[in-house]
Amino acid sequence: MVHSGANKEALAACRTQLEAQLDKLRTLTTENAGASAIQPEVALLQGLTEQLGALSVDKKKSGSGKLTLKTPKGTRDWDPLSMALRKHVFATIERVFAKHGAVTIDTPVFELKEILAGKYGEDSKLIYDLQDQGGELCSLRYDLTVPFARFVAMNPTDYGNIKRYHIAKVYRRDQPAMTKGRFREFYQCDFDIAGTYDAMVPDAECLCIVAEALDALGIDAFTIKVNHRKILDAIFAVCGVPDDKIRTISSAVDKLDKSPWAEVRREMVEDKGLDGAVADKIGTYVQLHGGRELLTRLEQDAELTANARAAEGLADMALLFTYLDVYRLTDRISFDLSLARGLDYYTGVIYEVVTAASAPPGFHKDGAAPAAAPKPKKKDDEEVDESTVGVGSIAAGGRYDNLVGMFSGSKKPDAVPCVGVSIGVERVFSILMQRIRDAQARGERSAVRQKEVDVFVMSMGDGLLLERMQVCKLLWDHGINAEFLYKKKPKLQAQFAVVDKEQIPYAVMLAPGEWAQGKVRVKQQLVKDEAGADKGEEVPLSELCAYLQEKQR
Amino acid sequence: MVHSGANKEALAACRTQLEAQLDKLRTLTTENAGASAIQPEVALLQGLTEQLGALSVDKKKSGSGKLTLKTPKGTRDWDPLSMALRKHVFATIERVFAKHGAVTIDTPVFELKEILAGKYGEDSKLIYDLQDQGGELCSLRYDLTVPFARFVAMNPTDYGNIKRYHIAKVYRRDQPAMTKGRFREFYQCDFDIAGTYDAMVPDAECLCIVAEALDALGIDAFTIKVNHRKILDAIFAVCGVPDDKIRTISSAVDKLDKSPWAEVRREMVEDKGLDGAVADKIGTYVQLHGGRELLTRLEQDAELTANARAAEGLADMALLFTYLDVYRLTDRISFDLSLARGLDYYTGVIYEVVTAASAPPGFHKDGAAPAAAPKPKKKDDEEVDESTVGVGSIAAGGRYDNLVGMFSGSKKPDAVPCVGVSIGVERVFSILMQRIRDAQARGERSAVRQKEVDVFVMSMGDGLLLERMQVCKLLWDHGINAEFLYKKKPKLQAQFAVVDKEQIPYAVMLAPGEWAQGKVRVKQQLVKDEAGADKGEEVPLSELCAYLQEKQR
Repeated sequence: MVHSGANKEALAACRTQLEAQLDKLRTLTTENAGASAIQPEVALLQGLTEQLGALSVDKKKSGSGKLTLKTPKGTRDWDPLSMALRKHVFATIERVFAKHGAVTIDTPVFELKEILAGKYGEDSKLIYDLQDQGGELCSLRYDLTVPFARFVAMNPTDYGNIKRYHIAKVYRRDQPAMTKGRFREFYQCDFDIAGTYDAMVPDAECLCIVAEALDALGIDAFTIKVNHRKILDAIFAVCGVPDDKIRTISSAVDKLDKSPWAEVRREMVEDKGLDGAVADKIGTYVQLHGGRELLTRLEQDAELTANARAAEGLADMALLFTYLDVYRLTDRISFDLSLARGLDYYTGVIYEVVTAASAPPGFHKDGAAPAAAPKPKKKDDEEVDESTVGVGSIAAGGRYDNLVGMFSGSKKPDAVPCVGVSIGVERVFSILMQRIRDAQARGERSAVRQKEVDVFVMSMGDGLLLERMQVCKLLWDHGINAEFLYKKKPKLQAQFAVVDKEQIPYAVMLAPGEWAQGKVRVKQQLVKDEAGADKGEEVPLSELCAYLQEKQR
Repeated sequence: MVHSGANKEALAACRTQLEAQLDKLRTLTTENAGASAIQPEVALLQGLTEQLGALSVDKKKSGSGKLTLKTPKGTRDWDPLSMALRKHVFATIERVFAKHGAVTIDTPVFELKEILAGKYGEDSKLIYDLQDQGGELCSLRYDLTVPFARFVAMNPTDYGNIKRYHIAKVYRRDQPAMTKGRFREFYQCDFDIAGTYDAMVPDAECLCIVAEALDALGIDAFTIKVNHRKILDAIFAVCGVPDDKIRTISSAVDKLDKSPWAEVRREMVEDKGLDGAVADKIGTYVQLHGGRELLTRLEQDAELTANARAAEGLADMALLFTYLDVYRLTDRISFDLSLARGLDYYTGVIYEVVTAASAPPGFHKDGAAPAAAPKPKKKDDEEVDESTVGVGSIAAGGRYDNLVGMFSGSKKPDAVPCVGVSIGVERVFSILMQRIRDAQARGERSAVRQKEVDVFVMSMGDGLLLERMQVCKLLWDHGINAEFLYKKKPKLQAQFAVVDKEQIPYAVMLAPGEWAQGKVRVKQQLVKDEAGADKGEEVPLSELCAYLQEKQR
């Protein structure tokens, strides 16, 4: 702790240095110095500001001396029940991935800063950097896709063909909205297929997998919205959108799931300077959604099919519909021309899964009540993960054929084409946790148990500590989950309180008399069928494990 | 990608913003604004500089385009085989923890900087800080114990009594020695019991659990070294070590597992200025190790037992031996008076598990060949994790009754006493990975499979893509792990190559003629008992799943 006099001096010195550093920077910028010259000076400035902050904090601290007991903003602890649910969700999803022959990999939580640079556009400002403590400059991973592409590019021989999943935490210095499930530290769950294969075969399997996973998780009534970047780009070209406006117009179109067409058109024309006639023509396309009949309609659009990219995209979509028929998914698909997806790196099919559960009430993008289509959602409030899992959606993804090439510096940018899907597990947690709470409120026993203990070994008198330990060790050695109270002479009431609170199915009760005869008493909790069941059953110790294993079968 | 013209524009715009931001900051400092006002503005400046850098990099990129493809120093990717092993290790350990009624929690990867401050002594310099980008100052977690204590202190009512495990990555800016398994990002696997219970009951269970876990992992021939902080402190007091030298003398004693007594004595006397006679007296104690007979010997040491702390420690040890008898662990225990453990926060029993596999050849601390005792290990080279898993050891831990109190600011520092054990899972990985490699070298099939596919569905002619998809979907829907080649018309050889490479047990073969009759052919790979087995068996498609499920049983 700095003394208050010394502190004042240090503060003043720090301020002087800070001002000098600012002047230095101003000179550099006036001289039009390069970024490489400016950056180290800003780092110094940053250091000085930190020092200033620390000195100010120290001063405040010496007053109170209290430690703030909290997790950092936007992060949270996982309590035992949340963890039990998390394990259940991951195991369920992993089971589906494994069924499809996927392997799993992991990458470090931080990457070299330059690996992430230039991958996230404007959102780069949300990347967490590690402090420069000497050595390499590193950043916390922002998603799992870029680390995956880096991994494949580093190991092209071994992993140029790989079907992998990766479930891990990622980090974004975003404004958190924790009650809505938006965190700064959150899980992503990605499945991707890298490798050169025949068109749309891996793409269709990604959709098959996401549907199987959501079914396995009990997420009801979801719709898979599908579109194709090449078709979208062709529509913009055919309608006459200038090249340099394509991305911004695309992002306006993406808002059709929360705003009516009139508002989106206004944004295009007034805010983004698009010609009104061009906007109107776009409107005739992007308000369309449907199934295979929409594909047929587009295939008959001579103006569109004359565009080479459109023709490629439409051929892909035709194959996709054929494959999705085999996977019996066609009913769950909505071919939606307004789906654009934020990320730049998509090159082919794109998709987003929406569920009734993940969407608040609202209107559909075309203003009409949709038939099997999902309810829409509000973008700004509901978003879990803007880049990979869209608006109120529960899963999203697409084809990105050039990302690995950005790393490998290959002459053929699509040397390792990829397609993948990301399941919004944080949203899955929220939905399932709400179900657990609802079940608890109804007094039902939850299927997800935070503790897997099946047997509680208790003393009916005289402590019997060593005996309880002995019985537990016997059970543990036979693979039976068991606990006892860590007290020499626990009260009977205290022991039953544990059994009740933890809902432990079996109580093994030790009493001095029975114990002397080599016997214990087993009582099945939570089951009170017969009048006498409450007293339990006498079981010889030598038969206890077999007895319990039989009961649990 | 930004066009070079647009890039120029963006660069200019960025420079203008940068200059404006500098002016703003200069105004703020002139006005003597506080750190809280300045910091967010510097964060903005930082963002602009980064943007400037990124834009400049883009420009450069078009020239060279070379990126360093690596993970940060001291970190690594987990390839599919390593991940399969990691999952196996975690599942095995978690099974043991769950058997004992443990729940699991998770905490954020980073904590507020002040939470970690003052907890790790000199090693605090190894903590990774996040860059100050505006907002709270945070650091990557250094271990799992401090976050656990913070969690318990935050939730004393719910978790003042908790038996929890936590398996997660921790971060240390240490000099990595990756071939020796020392990383900057590595896993810790902690089991702890918090709560006020009768003496040594939870402590004994921690040792029981670590033994069960290592047995379950197939780690052979381990010894659990046990000591007690109160006994050690009493020995130093009785021998006449001045209070201010106790920690440094304790750390010298801890080196007895790699250095002979003469060298440790020299360090005490010459380097640390201890009186020679005092050192000699210490030597009569700390070279002792053994079983219950050593406890008996100490209990008869009048000078030692006169010390209140020693009496407490010896009473604890007597209880521990009694409980370990019940858990049938006494044979695996070495009561070792030289075991000191680095961390300051231990207050009672301390332990460390060493195995032959984790230790290089060398000499024992007393210079004699030990009977059942483990082989010793070199400290500087072999250490996995200095603070929680000691020298060449595979697990370690102890009782720490005051750590939660440091956070809760409770008047009773041991309001939430804790005891725990940390399993050195990184070392476990190394040992088991070596076994897998040895097995592979012998041509044996590894028990750990990176891919869990059981069936490969292949075409014997004419592609039959939709049919292969249909069969796979049938298998997936019945919970059978299956794959096919993502090609329209795959070559027979290419399909068999996958089956062989991935060692997939069953091939389901589709041929146009058989398919027309509703049949497929199932061939069991890797089994060639009978002459005809190679051709496989014809199975009606309607019976395929039942057939395969029966086979796999």
